[in-house]
Amino acid sequence: MKALVKPKPAPGFLLTDVPVPAVGPGDVLIAVEKAGLCGTDHHIYAWDGWAQQRIKPPIVVGHEFMGTVAAIGSEVRSIRAGERVSAEGHIADLTCLLCRTGQAHICEHVEIIGVDRDGAFAQYVAIPENNVWRLDADIPDVSAAIFDPLGNAVHTVMAAGVSVKSVVVSGVGSIGLLAVAVARAAGATSIYAIDVNPARLELARTLGADAGFLSSDPGIADEIRRRTAGNGADVLLEMSGNAAAIDLGLRVLRNGATAALLGLPSRPVTLDLADRIIFKGITVLGINGRRMFETWYQAEALVKSGRVDPRTVITHVLPYTAFDEAFALMEKGEAVKIVLDFKGDIAKP
Amino acid sequence: MKALVKPKPAPGFLLTDVPVPAVGPGDVLIAVEKAGLCGTDHHIYAWDGWAQQRIKPPIVVGHEFMGTVAAIGSEVRSIRAGERVSAEGHIADLTCLLCRTGQAHICEHVEIIGVDRDGAFAQYVAIPENNVWRLDADIPDVSAAIFDPLGNAVHTVMAAGVSVKSVVVSGVGSIGLLAVAVARAAGATSIYAIDVNPARLELARTLGADAGFLSSDPGIADEIRRRTAGNGADVLLEMSGNAAAIDLGLRVLRNGATAALLGLPSRPVTLDLADRIIFKGITVLGINGRRMFETWYQAEALVKSGRVDPRTVITHVLPYTAFDEAFALMEKGEAVKIVLDFKGDIAKP
Amino acid sequence: MKALVKPKPAPGFLLTDVPVPAVGPGDVLIAVEKAGLCGTDHHIYAWDGWAQQRIKPPIVVGHEFMGTVAAIGSEVRSIRAGERVSAEGHIADLTCLLCRTGQAHICEHVEIIGVDRDGAFAQYVAIPENNVWRLDADIPDVSAAIFDPLGNAVHTVMAAGVSVKSVVVSGVGSIGLLAVAVARAAGATSIYAIDVNPARLELARTLGADAGFLSSDPGIADEIRRRTAGNGADVLLEMSGNAAAIDLGLRVLRNGATAALLGLPSRPVTLDLADRIIFKGITVLGINGRRMFETWYQAEALVKSGRVDPRTVITHVLPYTAFDEAFALMEKGEAVKIVLDFKGDIAKP
Amino acid sequence: MKALVKPKPAPGFLLTDVPVPAVGPGDVLIAVEKAGLCGTDHHIYAWDGWAQQRIKPPIVVGHEFMGTVAAIGSEVRSIRAGERVSAEGHIADLTCLLCRTGQAHICEHVEIIGVDRDGAFAQYVAIPENNVWRLDADIPDVSAAIFDPLGNAVHTVMAAGVSVKSVVVSGVGSIGLLAVAVARAAGATSIYAIDVNPARLELARTLGADAGFLSSDPGIADEIRRRTAGNGADVLLEMSGNAAAIDLGLRVLRNGATAALLGLPSRPVTLDLADRIIFKGITVLGINGRRMFETWYQAEALVKSGRVDPRTVITHVLPYTAFDEAFALMEKGEAVKIVLDFKGDIAKP
Repeated sequence: MKALVKPKPAPGFLLTDVPVPAVGPGDVLIAVEKAGLCGTDHHIYAWDGWAQQRIKPPIVVGHEFMGTVAAIGSEVRSIRAGERVSAEGHIADLTCLLCRTGQAHICEHVEIIGVDRDGAFAQYVAIPENNVWRLDADIPDVSAAIFDPLGNAVHTVMAAGVSVKSVVVSGVGSIGLLAVAVARAAGATSIYAIDVNPARLELARTLGADAGFLSSDPGIADEIRRRTAGNGADVLLEMSGNAAAIDLGLRVLRNGATAALLGLPSRPVTLDLADRIIFKGITVLGINGRRMFETWYQAEALVKSGRVDPRTVITHVLPYTAFDEAFALMEKGEAVKIVLDFKGDIAKP
Repeated sequence: MKALVKPKPAPGFLLTDVPVPAVGPGDVLIAVEKAGLCGTDHHIYAWDGWAQQRIKPPIVVGHEFMGTVAAIGSEVRSIRAGERVSAEGHIADLTCLLCRTGQAHICEHVEIIGVDRDGAFAQYVAIPENNVWRLDADIPDVSAAIFDPLGNAVHTVMAAGVSVKSVVVSGVGSIGLLAVAVARAAGATSIYAIDVNPARLELARTLGADAGFLSSDPGIADEIRRRTAGNGADVLLEMSGNAAAIDLGLRVLRNGATAALLGLPSRPVTLDLADRIIFKGITVLGINGRRMFETWYQAEALVKSGRVDPRTVITHVLPYTAFDEAFALMEKGEAVKIVLDFKGDIAKP
Repeated sequence: MKALVKPKPAPGFLLTDVPVPAVGPGDVLIAVEKAGLCGTDHHIYAWDGWAQQRIKPPIVVGHEFMGTVAAIGSEVRSIRAGERVSAEGHIADLTCLLCRTGQAHICEHVEIIGVDRDGAFAQYVAIPENNVWRLDADIPDVSAAIFDPLGNAVHTVMAAGVSVKSVVVSGVGSIGLLAVAVARAAGATSIYAIDVNPARLELARTLGADAGFLSSDPGIADEIRRRTAGNGADVLLEMSGNAAAIDLGLRVLRNGATAALLGLPSRPVTLDLADRIIFKGITVLGINGRRMFETWYQAEALVKSGRVDPRTVITHVLPYTAFDEAFALMEKGEAVKIVLDFKGDIAKP
Repeated sequence: MKALVKPKPAPGFLLTDVPVPAVGPGDVLIAVEKAGLCGTDHHIYAWDGWAQQRIKPPIVVGHEFMGTVAAIGSEVRSIRAGERVSAEGHIADLTCLLCRTGQAHICEHVEIIGVDRDGAFAQYVAIPENNVWRLDADIPDVSAAIFDPLGNAVHTVMAAGVSVKSVVVSGVGSIGLLAVAVARAAGATSIYAIDVNPARLELARTLGADAGFLSSDPGIADEIRRRTAGNGADVLLEMSGNAAAIDLGLRVLRNGATAALLGLPSRPVTLDLADRIIFKGITVLGINGRRMFETWYQAEALVKSGRVDPRTVITHVLPYTAFDEAFALMEKGEAVKIVLDFKGDIAKP
């Protein structure tokens, strides 16, 4: 089959032929149709410091996708060939304390497809039955292809709790933008977006933000205070991972507020814990992945009911062969979310 | 009346005569009997950087105390002269969003007695009715005198939630030691104390810790992992405010754990947010003061039922005139908790 | 001043002259402008069994209202004459365990205006400072007049938690209809209304319900199961107090769901606790009044942001002198919510 | 192998030879060593109305047990032959909404061993891998044999939340007694037991209850109010399923309290919902089974730490051949908890 492969420890991907993955007794083989391009994929493509440390080439990359079940292992009971599916790309061990208490999303032994084992930028991917998510007929293909980042947004929003609250979204890349839309649908009464990119802020307003602020604006804290009756905001959804943005985000919160951190700082952050967190009585939530499978049910409910339309952040759908062009668009900041199409060219296994 | 006063911006306190405080229509005048000596009092006594920035002399110091109601204002309805009482020393405005939603302990306009206004190291102190706490007859005087720091411990323990959990207490000064005792009574199934002081660790074990570790011990993380079936601890109660201790405390937590931060770092802390908090899905709680008045009810239930005995941390009860000796004992590390006695010498107003 | 009074233990109200209420040092005198007519008022007007047991005539009735501060007591600090206000009609003692732990809405010693003491269907009403709610300029008068029942709806919705959930509202009288609107704004992804009245169900759909069912429809449970992927609904908001409706409501819930009960059954209810609650792992919440003052902040945020417009349930605004006509409209089922106007005729005290 | 079988729809069990159960690819075959006798077993033995409706003979009975792994299926990864184990007897489907969101204990398609499929009163039982619980070496065999009812107690206590609370346990049969011990260990500051049996109340006091009350005592509500400063208790753990006990239990709660219902009423219960639940703002929790596997981890932590010793409720350990004698002891009320021993006579499969 065709696959996008990181062949060796160097920049770039290789479009090449690899064997269709083996299907164990508990596995599901999925013919990939659409797959989302993620910042993580770009780290691996560009071969940055993080990628050099984490990735062991050769490996098939990619982890956001949807497709159709092509075959199932002998012990699979809940999934059938021909079903339209997506999948949770974090493969937990299912036997540890965390997996056995409903917290598989933070399993210490997790393996991520396209990072720790072969991924989904290929004509086929094999996934354990437990990770497969059957798609509702009302969910469009391109939306289904990005349920993984949508899930990051949903998990962050739902962990923080935004119902009848004022919410600051710090960093409106594709996940931050989805978080704006999800927060709006989940009942936020006001939403303030902060970013370095005016076009993204404009899109955030379209998706439900009441106001957008450039990070460089020195009046953000005053303006958010003013709009929240002098108190500060109830909730921070931190999607940037930027140290200054984290500090600003905590500053614009009211005492007793909640900050959910999804964005990953690339290095340690110097924080005034006393003034930003302890005296204010702030609750800080570290957010990782998506809850299995509350988040997926919530994402389905949001998209199926029409409250959230993930297509609003998809700027490009390209054939998978155009991957170099896709990464170039990402680098130039001309794309928000890019979906690759694998369907035009599917060989049966 | 006699009072311990910070007379001017310089080290030391002055024992002097000052007027008995005025009693407004909503105030309660309390004849102080016993008062606890706090680290904050020592900051003010020593006139360190924090004190220089915060304290405006002259001011009567002290905020932990108990006594008897000597007089009440014309509008006071729930308290009578002669009642035995303690008081919450954080005077909230009662009109802001936080006060009106059960979070007066993080009111932005709080005034602290002995810090922002005249305090309790005096023969009399005037307190708003709402801040007065009527003492159960079963609570001994010296225990009642330190309900304020006991309350810090109770608030931290109850906010984190320790019932049937493994708990690390990082820093076992007087509040940390009380937190050990409270955590044990509140249902922790295992408690691990960390400190620089072996004698404090020994006392922690007496109060219910299963093990005590010197901060310098390089094997702490391994040993706590070993004792928690390889997972790490469920809860961190951070009482030290020390940057290295915060990092260590977060390291010994399992994924999905809760860290309650009460200890105040004296300067910004550099934290690996990605590895310590975000990937692990940690919940961090900033803890300030005591909940009004859940914490007081909980402290009362714990002491009245005999589950916690605050006297275990009181090493000295001295006449208030011996305040210089008391601070010298604190400085030498020879005392855990010191209570000053004001009763021998009470003039009627 | 003019007031609507229950003069003696018999049906009807009397429009008569009574003294302007005395204003204690902690009280606020409010010139009433608009007041909502509640089912409770009708119980008292009709002098039913509940009213005969609870009401001690003579008493000024009415508890939902808004107006302008006419005078303040000598100890009032946070409210000034001339301010536009509404008020929480449940006057809690502020000194008990519940009041001191953020649960004043279930204070055992509560007094309700218009029920236990003189109320708001009058040109003036005196209210303790703590109960007064300053109105945002963006809240229209008629909306402000019904913040009390809006608050019942908000408290029920927020206690249950509806964000990204499927919700059944059982009973869509005025509070049930407000609950539909609030649930929609607070993030419910689907809402199903049940009632005996087709016109109310139609209005429920306008306010955000996805479907409305007549109570007599035998297919409700099947249809709600079908619409919730075979699981049943996540949340029940029970507003009817009807025994059959409570049973049906519990039946249409999925295992692990939450049922918030606001509607008051007039007599004991026979319930299959084992099959409806215990085996299913249902959480049942008894709901009373409005949280002081979380609920008021939430109601303000919902109305100010335009997410909820209480005017959608107000069918009539009548002069207060037309109170008999108003109750006749209620009895005939021709009105949803009626607001009485007191402003045309205000004598200065 | 030898097994206790319900052979036909009539009272009594039959000790007979049946085939060793088949072991599917995902199953674990366990050589049973000790098994607990439950009230459910007695319903089936006595062939009461519930049993006649639910049980389809012939079936091997029994669901509380521990033993040693004798064999594993080809796909089993986390369990090995020779390991000492217990097992969760509720076999959930693992594919529904509830199972996929951490609530497998209320899976709608659950099958219970010894009730819906062959059970554990036999020399061998086959259990799906996911249901097997590896035993810590510090847990004694007889304690491990009753982790199922201990788990009911732990789940009820932990769902209600008892840390620093006053707790009423209504019904102190074996699960109620375990609930007393667990509540004490989990941090309850006071515990009041209610039952019809003075000997059980005496045992409850030994296990940590502060007082025991006979159900017939008319002064219970007054006495519990008196002991809780006039407020009523914080938590009710309802273990009796008796209608009068449920009403009494709700009456002795303070406003805003939590009631966890585990006891199953045999018929519908007539409840004054308005006065007992709605006005008081009570939270009622339906409790079923044990959380998979939070409850098991919690039970392990409690027993391993020595905070709870399940042996305190075990009054008899009998050979499994003495099952008729065991049921006679239960009927006469002479036993609290009986454990059957299967180990003396184990044939290898």
